[in-house]
Amino acid sequence: QSLKIGLIPADGIGKEVIPAAKAVLEALGSDIPKPEFVPLLAGWEVFTRGGNALPHETVDALKECDAALFGAVSSPTRRVTGYSSPIVQLRKELDLYANVRPVASVAANPGGKPDVDLVVVRENTECLYVKQEQITPTENGREARAIRLITERASSRIGKMAFDIALGRPRKQVTIIHKSNVLSVTDGLFRETVRAVPALPEINGAYDNVKIEEQIVDSAVYRLFREPEIYDVMVAPNLYGDILSDAAAALVGSLGLVPSVNAGDSFVMGEPVHGSAPDIEGKGIANPLAAIRSAALMLRFQGHTVGADRIDRAVEQVIREGEVLTPDLGGTSKTQEVLDAVLKKL
Amino acid sequence: QSLKIGLIPADGIGKEVIPAAKAVLEALGSDIPKPEFVPLLAGWEVFTRGGNALPHETVDALKECDAALFGAVSSPTRRVTGYSSPIVQLRKELDLYANVRPVASVAANPGGKPDVDLVVVRENTECLYVKQEQITPTENGREARAIRLITERASSRIGKMAFDIALGRPRKQVTIIHKSNVLSVTDGLFRETVRAVPALPEINGAYDNVKIEEQIVDSAVYRLFREPEIYDVMVAPNLYGDILSDAAAALVGSLGLVPSVNAGDSFVMGEPVHGSAPDIEGKGIANPLAAIRSAALMLRFQGHTVGADRIDRAVEQVIREGEVLTPDLGGTSKTQEVLDAVLKKL
Ligand SMILES: CC(C)[C@H](C(=O)O)[C@@H](O)C(=O)O
Ligand SMILES: CC(C)[C@H](C(=O)O)[C@@H](O)C(=O)O
Repeated sequence: QSLKIGLIPADGIGKEVIPAAKAVLEALGSDIPKPEFVPLLAGWEVFTRGGNALPHETVDALKECDAALFGAVSSPTRRVTGYSSPIVQLRKELDLYANVRPVASVAANPGGKPDVDLVVVRENTECLYVKQEQITPTENGREARAIRLITERASSRIGKMAFDIALGRPRKQVTIIHKSNVLSVTDGLFRETVRAVPALPEINGAYDNVKIEEQIVDSAVYRLFREPEIYDVMVAPNLYGDILSDAAAALVGSLGLVPSVNAGDSFVMGEPVHGSAPDIEGKGIANPLAAIRSAALMLRFQGHTVGADRIDRAVEQVIREGEVLTPDLGGTSKTQEVLDAVLKKL
Repeated sequence: QSLKIGLIPADGIGKEVIPAAKAVLEALGSDIPKPEFVPLLAGWEVFTRGGNALPHETVDALKECDAALFGAVSSPTRRVTGYSSPIVQLRKELDLYANVRPVASVAANPGGKPDVDLVVVRENTECLYVKQEQITPTENGREARAIRLITERASSRIGKMAFDIALGRPRKQVTIIHKSNVLSVTDGLFRETVRAVPALPEINGAYDNVKIEEQIVDSAVYRLFREPEIYDVMVAPNLYGDILSDAAAALVGSLGLVPSVNAGDSFVMGEPVHGSAPDIEGKGIANPLAAIRSAALMLRFQGHTVGADRIDRAVEQVIREGEVLTPDLGGTSKTQEVLDAVLKKL
């Protein structure tokens, strides 16, 4: 038995951290099925060369894989004809409907808040990310409109994911994030659908011990900074989840620590939450820990718990000891040195 | 000459902090035209009694006023037929297109970050706040859609407001907040329109010394927590501005400190950024400083700078001395005691 893993480093430091995650997976030995890696292309650089940020071959090859690791993309902020974010497209094409982002502080991480231990469960296929936008000229200038889509189906399945994750955690609490005081129809549907999940017949009472809370998104961000300890699992529509996970990452000291998976019913793609960081690209100082943890989270979603635990423990030890850290965490080590330190603890 | 000010305490602690702001305005004496107050109704409580959260009489009366102070509303989070947030409605009906929220740390405020000194300039009439929402049943369950509207006209006038405010500040920097890597059309229009403001013929080069930066909204929130000192004036579409101002408020120690105005071309309405806080309603411990500062900001927008400065200095002294603070700032004082302390410093 082998584990076929698509590797899509994409742009910038993606090309530095994905090889580190690969090295860690290779070092796990018999704790996981033998990994077989399939290098794949996507991103801004590929777009500038060939005109397609997500080549068909990449999507086709991924469909033959058991899982994948994605690096980061450099999106242009100005409008470029024909360019569309490959990560947003991949999430939709592979129906990876849940973006799961655990954010926890590790003791001894300088600059981190001590009491953060939460998971952002972000809906990953709709909201404003459907990218249905239009622009029309009028007498008073141009007017642009975007559609924000919230469906019962997507809200229900992301709700289930959130409750499932909460069940596996000591506090068993789900906080629904919304803005239904303004968006009573769309966020109203999200809120109501997630709330209704525990009573679904197929759930059979399995979530009865999970406590349900809710927060309006603006006040959720405020309270995240003031009292992060009130959160366990946060479930949110796509854009709120995007913002919340960056906000939570700030609390634990660096985006360079925060992993994620894009998960569907039959495929999972690990992805560090950080971006392509053009400012430090090529310097060999990118923090590989988010990518390494994303590999662990990917394994966890596939049921390879022993391997995932080994990686997470090794990463935690490296952070706790605080001797081999990249500059984003106040250290002076290189990507390769942090990787070596993790490999040694493995 | 007199200053006719509509007072809309609305719900919850709005009814405790607006009287405090009124008392401070009354104490200014000849530094401002004699204030004449017009008490007006709006909010959830009014809705539950009379079926209209924003009675027509309130809107009509405001049109006869020079300015107004709004407290806070208790929005129901569930959908209630016929209810619509009165503050969102007021902003639109009076065309108060700019929501201006200065957030600055005061030395000696425990729990506050030292280097925050920024202004969030939030577009106040469109984005998802146009509340054009629909829900349709389908074979796979219900689907809800909301329209997000971004116009050139609204983006241009909020841009001007941001540049005007930046001109009056030492650093003269505007950071445009957007998510045009995903919303290339709507946020693309916002970004491009704000960027084009300095070159408009009617501006006549007045903004040439203002530095323009930009940030993607998720990374803007991340950096706000990590390096708040990088921001001076942040200009944002409605919803991002809503979230950003709460995030910034968390940095300075309490939402109970952060004022705002809703400003149009010929009317300005002060409003503390905090909500109606049902948990502490009626206890007499609400922090009145955000409402008092909102009164000062209202005066400033009307050109009554001397009065505004007096209020701001008094508030700063009270915070700096740290002896009379409400519980949100770690103190044990009552609303009335904080008001008295401000009046004494005035
Ligand atoms: C790069 C961008 C399209 C992406 C998103 O908004 O989802 C990123 O911010 C993320 O969080 O993965
Ligand atoms: C109460 C709510 C409608 C309002 C908003 O979203 O604008 C509030 O959060 C604010 O920031 O003034």
